Amino acid sequence: MKRIAAGIDVGGTNSAFGFVDSDGNIIASGNIKTDISDDFDVYLNLLISEINNVFSTIKGDYEIAGYGIGAPNGNYFHGTIENAPNLRWKGKIEFTKNLSAITGKPAFLTNDANAAAIGEKIFGKAKDLNDFVVITLGTGLGSGIYCGGKLLYGSTSQAGEVGHIIVEKNGRLCGCGRKGCLEKYASATGIKLTAHELLKNSNRKSLLRNYPENEIGSKLIYECAVKGDELALECFDFTGEILGRALANVTAVLSPEAIFLFGGLALAGDIIFNPVRKYCEENLLNIFKGTVKIEKSGLKENSAAILGAAALFFSESGV
Amino acid sequence: MKRIAAGIDVGGTNSAFGFVDSDGNIIASGNIKTDISDDFDVYLNLLISEINNVFSTIKGDYEIAGYGIGAPNGNYFHGTIENAPNLRWKGKIEFTKNLSAITGKPAFLTNDANAAAIGEKIFGKAKDLNDFVVITLGTGLGSGIYCGGKLLYGSTSQAGEVGHIIVEKNGRLCGCGRKGCLEKYASATGIKLTAHELLKNSNRKSLLRNYPENEIGSKLIYECAVKGDELALECFDFTGEILGRALANVTAVLSPEAIFLFGGLALAGDIIFNPVRKYCEENLLNIFKGTVKIEKSGLKENSAAILGAAALFFSESGV
Repeated sequence: MKRIAAGIDVGGTNSAFGFVDSDGNIIASGNIKTDISDDFDVYLNLLISEINNVFSTIKGDYEIAGYGIGAPNGNYFHGTIENAPNLRWKGKIEFTKNLSAITGKPAFLTNDANAAAIGEKIFGKAKDLNDFVVITLGTGLGSGIYCGGKLLYGSTSQAGEVGHIIVEKNGRLCGCGRKGCLEKYASATGIKLTAHELLKNSNRKSLLRNYPENEIGSKLIYECAVKGDELALECFDFTGEILGRALANVTAVLSPEAIFLFGGLALAGDIIFNPVRKYCEENLLNIFKGTVKIEKSGLKENSAAILGAAALFFSESGV
Repeated sequence: MKRIAAGIDVGGTNSAFGFVDSDGNIIASGNIKTDISDDFDVYLNLLISEINNVFSTIKGDYEIAGYGIGAPNGNYFHGTIENAPNLRWKGKIEFTKNLSAITGKPAFLTNDANAAAIGEKIFGKAKDLNDFVVITLGTGLGSGIYCGGKLLYGSTSQAGEVGHIIVEKNGRLCGCGRKGCLEKYASATGIKLTAHELLKNSNRKSLLRNYPENEIGSKLIYECAVKGDELALECFDFTGEILGRALANVTAVLSPEAIFLFGGLALAGDIIFNPVRKYCEENLLNIFKGTVKIEKSGLKENSAAILGAAALFFSESGV
């Protein structure tokens, strides 16, 4: 009997899950709506039922060894989701306790950016690295950090909020209520704001002016940048500058061997990696120059969240 | 026979050493000049000879179990001092290898700020903490970081350069060649520069104007602040603001349970701690508010370096 983990990625709208073996193969997958009810039990019972349905379709001699969960506002120490603004369940949700009570199997939970880092360590490019950082560039900026071979949780389990480093005094207003957080610059949201500002504050020509304001997002900025549009390229340069400077500061604290970028913006390739690398290297303290690689994540965009969640299970249970 | 460690603190001018038992008692101590020669071997032989001299005066049944060394530009991974700008020995100095070859005893070396953190963990206020930061406020700003119960070295052994986080774009020129490093603001040097700037850029009254410019340093600024001098108090407020903001960012990355301040500026007590705490708390991400204490180090100023170096030995050897 081959033991596989069920990796669950809890998103605001959908929850995706997949059965993953210890080599990182996804054997089967499925998903349910996350926002079906204010009552967590309704969601959990549906999730387990759907997981069992999909499992029953798998051919071969497999056993579910346990569950790994990546979730927004996940607390690894308690296996809970706490006060997640983008989920319908309020307060503290006892995710792993209730899941294990029903299934009789071990379950582990962490936040989604930590899951991405664990995925990189177990199945991605960081297998042989002890000190590295994974930065997820989505709507916001998440991060998961390995120090000395272990995921960094800090005293609260909430370490790794690189997205909420304040990089600009009195800068852009962040959803957290403060101003100038990194994620308001270096994320899909951030580059969109940058484009809107550059368009508004000048009369410079740009392909972006051919589109209504509400259509100008990170994808369109990328497409225009690929066509050589100077203003669009400047958006990426500015984003890369702010991110590169922040990563130089993060390196002064952590001295990682590598920083992996993951998520939407990272798909822009050289257009984002070149300025990030340039400004990071320029701003590094001498002793760190040449010591830190900035690379694309080794996990595929569409399977990374499930692989990361499953990797959490493998990492914790030593299966 | 009771086993004791020799803790050695290598400074630019003097090297202090002391014999420390596993309870943190300094049983005897001594020192030699660090800058007697360009030849490291001359220094090392004198150091060992003087250590043996002092050891021979100790009454009681003791044995030197080994050596711990705190040194500027110390590389823990290699037991070396590398390109230290303030020491006469050039290049890479094989400190632990040569010391052990002569004495036949194990030796461990780390940089001085890391030694301070290890001292806090073994003999100070951090005995029960797994995640904390020690900030040393001297001529510069050093830091030693514990994550998950282990000192953070990163991939290069040089992690923990919090003093070289860039906090002001195009700010004050730092000795490292870059601009705006934290240690050019939050250190004895930093507060001196702040006072000189405030005095130069205004006509405001201040007790500090009674002294020639070259006498206005951190000690005098402190003495005037204690007397209620507004400009001197503003120097501490500004220093505390920059440091507090930086510590809020460090907390976003590491989520420590405590941050201990050590060294000259920390002796100013509430005058520095109040603004540091205030600005740190104000700038913390919500989830970290109330989770991190900022406190005075539990080690005494004059014995901390030797205790820290000895603690490195105890921590590594498990004696």
